[in-house]
Amino acid sequence: MSIQARIEQAMAQPFARVDTDAAPPRLVAALRHAVFPGGARIRPQLCLAVAQACGDDAPELSVAAAVAIELMHCASLVHDDMPCFDDADTRRGLPSVHRLYGEPLALLAGDGLIVLAFQTLAAAGVRRPDRLAPLIMTLAEGVGAPDGIVAGQAWECEPRVQLGQYQRAKTGALFVAATCAGAQAAGADPRPWRDLGEYLGEAYQVADDIRDVMGAHELGKPTGQDAQHARPSSAADLGLQAAVEHFRLLIASAVGSVPACPSQGLLRQLVMAESERLLPDSACEQIHRRSAVASRQAMA
Amino acid sequence: MSIQARIEQAMAQPFARVDTDAAPPRLVAALRHAVFPGGARIRPQLCLAVAQACGDDAPELSVAAAVAIELMHCASLVHDDMPCFDDADTRRGLPSVHRLYGEPLALLAGDGLIVLAFQTLAAAGVRRPDRLAPLIMTLAEGVGAPDGIVAGQAWECEPRVQLGQYQRAKTGALFVAATCAGAQAAGADPRPWRDLGEYLGEAYQVADDIRDVMGAHELGKPTGQDAQHARPSSAADLGLQAAVEHFRLLIASAVGSVPACPSQGLLRQLVMAESERLLPDSACEQIHRRSAVASRQAMA
Repeated sequence: MSIQARIEQAMAQPFARVDTDAAPPRLVAALRHAVFPGGARIRPQLCLAVAQACGDDAPELSVAAAVAIELMHCASLVHDDMPCFDDADTRRGLPSVHRLYGEPLALLAGDGLIVLAFQTLAAAGVRRPDRLAPLIMTLAEGVGAPDGIVAGQAWECEPRVQLGQYQRAKTGALFVAATCAGAQAAGADPRPWRDLGEYLGEAYQVADDIRDVMGAHELGKPTGQDAQHARPSSAADLGLQAAVEHFRLLIASAVGSVPACPSQGLLRQLVMAESERLLPDSACEQIHRRSAVASRQAMA
Repeated sequence: MSIQARIEQAMAQPFARVDTDAAPPRLVAALRHAVFPGGARIRPQLCLAVAQACGDDAPELSVAAAVAIELMHCASLVHDDMPCFDDADTRRGLPSVHRLYGEPLALLAGDGLIVLAFQTLAAAGVRRPDRLAPLIMTLAEGVGAPDGIVAGQAWECEPRVQLGQYQRAKTGALFVAATCAGAQAAGADPRPWRDLGEYLGEAYQVADDIRDVMGAHELGKPTGQDAQHARPSSAADLGLQAAVEHFRLLIASAVGSVPACPSQGLLRQLVMAESERLLPDSACEQIHRRSAVASRQAMA
């Protein structure tokens, strides 16, 4: 079974706990809609790849960690799409949760997914109690305050924000949680794996900023949102061409940060494949050509 | 130090983790506003009282459990007050979080408190790893789907709802979590403590319904909300006088459910004091007199 298929199967597991006769049916539908069909599932892939690199001696726990990370990501998307934030009508090419089920259920679905993430981890942690507390802390740090997703989104409500701090919290923190949790689930020291999460998380955010400016419709969500919501954006701050250079540097740093381990090659391949998915070489070339034309025109 | 003072001190502890230079200042302010000044803090009191009844051999853990339960309660209030639910301008006599800090920060503050609750428990659970997973599960069951607070609120979005199921999820579940977590934090079997949480939780909800109809302004929040939002209400379903009788029966059942233990007397006193706080005898008398007058008029 491919890693993607294993992840999809694992993502369905927590719903056995939720989808019972006792649950409000529309809430269950909203929770499912928030999680399926998924996006690239890059965070759980990353988490499992690091767990494998560290020996993965407790696969039930590493899978639970990967699922928990992705549930948190889904929760953040549901709340981020709501009218008081992006007011996005679509997500992954389908109506956003609040468009389909209304604001109250979108709010509750996000809350429910956060709870379900911790619950999923705890259910698997029963057999590995010594690893549970550090895993919960890692997950919480990736999501909460002072520097997880919640803090990242909250920087959008401040009069002043430093771009790097905003990006690290809004996007980087959950990538760091993904790599660190992968190591911790396998009983390994998470510290050598932080850099990989940080570089990849920042690369992801920069690519997102670039695509938001370019209007890449394959996102399945509205573009031009950063400017519309006056959000910090590296593409706006640096200009497209410089943002692309920055992205490439981050990917190279991510590749270089993978610690020596038997699956170092595989992990580097995963990073490169993710880089191509995030910002295809063809798009980089296009930006490069546009930028060259613009500077020739400026010189003429 | 009184138990209330100990709880207030303990509630401040998690903020040391959040309130750093790295955190967005307005988010931190919104988080604090959601938690301080608090209400009666009945859930953490109940949790600590049960832990003491069970020997309380890990006070750091029982305090963390009590704090986590109350943080969840505060999170639910912040989200419940938001425009897409109750649209309440005030809470505990002060502006609600979204009125003071705006909807985006209210949404994030609620999310942040949910995360902080699990984090608080995990931080204390490091020293008692064998007790952590069951505690996380108990907390999650009290808050999530299929039958915690999130499910309770979600029943308001269903075309049909059974009053008891709604009340058990919306209010009862966190009281059950409070009593069970108190026992689990002390290494005891939580099952004998479920009934106490269930009876008290239902009593709390019935009292809230009665006060909502009576328009008791000391709540510090708008009244008449249940009718306005067409929410299930025992006061509306049964009538005020019958709801009061139901409340008294629930309190008596809660008192009767306290398992035999050295602090049985103290726990029963706590339930009785809470009963008087929730619905003073004077209010019950008033409802009784009104009801007697109404039936005499009907007979005349």
